[in-house]
Amino acid sequence: MQPIQSVSWSPDGEALRILDQRELPAREVVRDLVGVDEIADAIRTLAIRGAPAIGVGAAIGLAAAIARASHGDGGTARRLLPGFAAQLAGTRPTAVNLSWAMNRMLACAHSTGDDRLLDALRAEATAIADEDAVMCRRIGEHGVSLLSDGMRVLTHCNAGALATSGIGTALAPVYVALERGMHVHVYASETRPLRQGARLTAWELARAGVQVTIIPDSAAAALMSAGEVELVIVGADRIARNGDTANKIGTYAHAISAQRHGIPFHVAAPWSTIDAGTPDGRGIVVEHRAADELGEVPAGAAVWNPAFDVTPVSLVTSFITDRGIHEARGAAGPELFTS
Amino acid sequence: MQPIQSVSWSPDGEALRILDQRELPAREVVRDLVGVDEIADAIRTLAIRGAPAIGVGAAIGLAAAIARASHGDGGTARRLLPGFAAQLAGTRPTAVNLSWAMNRMLACAHSTGDDRLLDALRAEATAIADEDAVMCRRIGEHGVSLLSDGMRVLTHCNAGALATSGIGTALAPVYVALERGMHVHVYASETRPLRQGARLTAWELARAGVQVTIIPDSAAAALMSAGEVELVIVGADRIARNGDTANKIGTYAHAISAQRHGIPFHVAAPWSTIDAGTPDGRGIVVEHRAADELGEVPAGAAVWNPAFDVTPVSLVTSFITDRGIHEARGAAGPELFTS
Repeated sequence: MQPIQSVSWSPDGEALRILDQRELPAREVVRDLVGVDEIADAIRTLAIRGAPAIGVGAAIGLAAAIARASHGDGGTARRLLPGFAAQLAGTRPTAVNLSWAMNRMLACAHSTGDDRLLDALRAEATAIADEDAVMCRRIGEHGVSLLSDGMRVLTHCNAGALATSGIGTALAPVYVALERGMHVHVYASETRPLRQGARLTAWELARAGVQVTIIPDSAAAALMSAGEVELVIVGADRIARNGDTANKIGTYAHAISAQRHGIPFHVAAPWSTIDAGTPDGRGIVVEHRAADELGEVPAGAAVWNPAFDVTPVSLVTSFITDRGIHEARGAAGPELFTS
Repeated sequence: MQPIQSVSWSPDGEALRILDQRELPAREVVRDLVGVDEIADAIRTLAIRGAPAIGVGAAIGLAAAIARASHGDGGTARRLLPGFAAQLAGTRPTAVNLSWAMNRMLACAHSTGDDRLLDALRAEATAIADEDAVMCRRIGEHGVSLLSDGMRVLTHCNAGALATSGIGTALAPVYVALERGMHVHVYASETRPLRQGARLTAWELARAGVQVTIIPDSAAAALMSAGEVELVIVGADRIARNGDTANKIGTYAHAISAQRHGIPFHVAAPWSTIDAGTPDGRGIVVEHRAADELGEVPAGAAVWNPAFDVTPVSLVTSFITDRGIHEARGAAGPELFTS
């Protein structure tokens, strides 16, 4: 079975089609959205999540919503565009891909006449989706060289098909391996507090026919000690110029344990994740999330709930990008990524 | 405020009084139990949990249930005793303290005449509870020497007052510090899947006036990297002769991270936790628990849910026992514990 499609055009080309991630893993609910309010709501409430998927979903959603609301009139579409784009961009203000996608759509409109505007927006949204899918596939094709039949791989959080418009980033090599007839056994760590590993990674892999086992985050070190992990692949939210990598909280602990057990630790991400403006991990600001994500808290107790942590490049074996595999371990200087 | 009492005699001396841990942290529910069925049920459903507390609770419960059911008649009591003890021992077959406590009660009965039997059982149960509380206090008084005012301490799971009839094991030094006017800030890792850290440790510490912050298990390494942890103290389920320590899943990951960050890692446990029959960690069998503890699992996905892991003695700084503090790091030979 093919990996699922988290965001796409509806078959009639009139709406944004999403797989509602709020309903997973209990129910596989597909929704076609065409109103800007319902699209904004889907992003805000995590029906669509994963930075690349949010950007793609907002771009397709913007094109679909403008076409419907303008009744096909280019002048009306141009008047509606800035407000619709700002509404969608405001739903997740920290998601870089989202504002990037909205700016790209606005730039497209700026260079197009009213008569061709709706077609141009539609084509630009499709291009954003297609480029994302191509990037995923390239990561998968480079990364599959690190896998072998029967290999046991640990991943964290969800950097799969649900987080992109393609076959994911960290999971892309696993899907390409599957296409080539290789059987990879994936261990998905639960990823507290929101359980993206248990809810989403396990769901999409099992659905695609990949053998997957959920573990508590705290069990990864014991699993490695038992000799059950041969490779770790995780995604990335931001990579500093020296290779220090911000990713979902818990990634750093997995990297420390992997080093202790001599297990290769790979980061899979599009080249665009490398932040040339940040020299090293000290410059990455860690976002903190609400206490109630952790569930019921006793009166008088506080909660420390960071969204991600920073894994130093010294713990990373390689970066699997759409441009190829970049060795990291033993990187000599501060400028791992200079181009 | 004093630490809570998880198991004790009821004030009238007729029943087992428990603080129902199923209701925590939402409600503080005290129950007086006197029927053997309801006592067995309380242990089986984790209203009483923590190996020392289970042993104490079963001993007091046995004495109370026998007194009630025999209407004070020694001969009847003796006839009922083996069945009641077996019923309680069978509730948690792997809990060593439970069978140990039941055997001790049976041995007491064996050496006592019918006329004094009920008083002897009552006295023996009280002795088991008192010895446990004394053991906790000794651990606390030895361990407090490792703490200082304002210190930030990480612990895992619940090895506190709720798990014993006294002030706990890993938390005992914190309570003694509090008595002496020192303010220790405890970070309690959540402890998936059953959340004993977030539900129980945070609750009992906050109630006693200790500053406590809950973190996801996966955030401990990031917390250490941020310089927020000066000391780690955990309990132990079993300690091999060489010092390898079985404790709640996640302990090993914390120990690996502590070593990387140069943070002392201490194990607090009664001397009776040392298993002289097990030379090292390889001999400790890891119990696996039900998949559904982790919550909803997607169709087709498996779950790996071990109850504990084994931390090698090389990662342990010292053992805080009722007999004193035993240095571990740099232990030269396989026989750390020979007496």
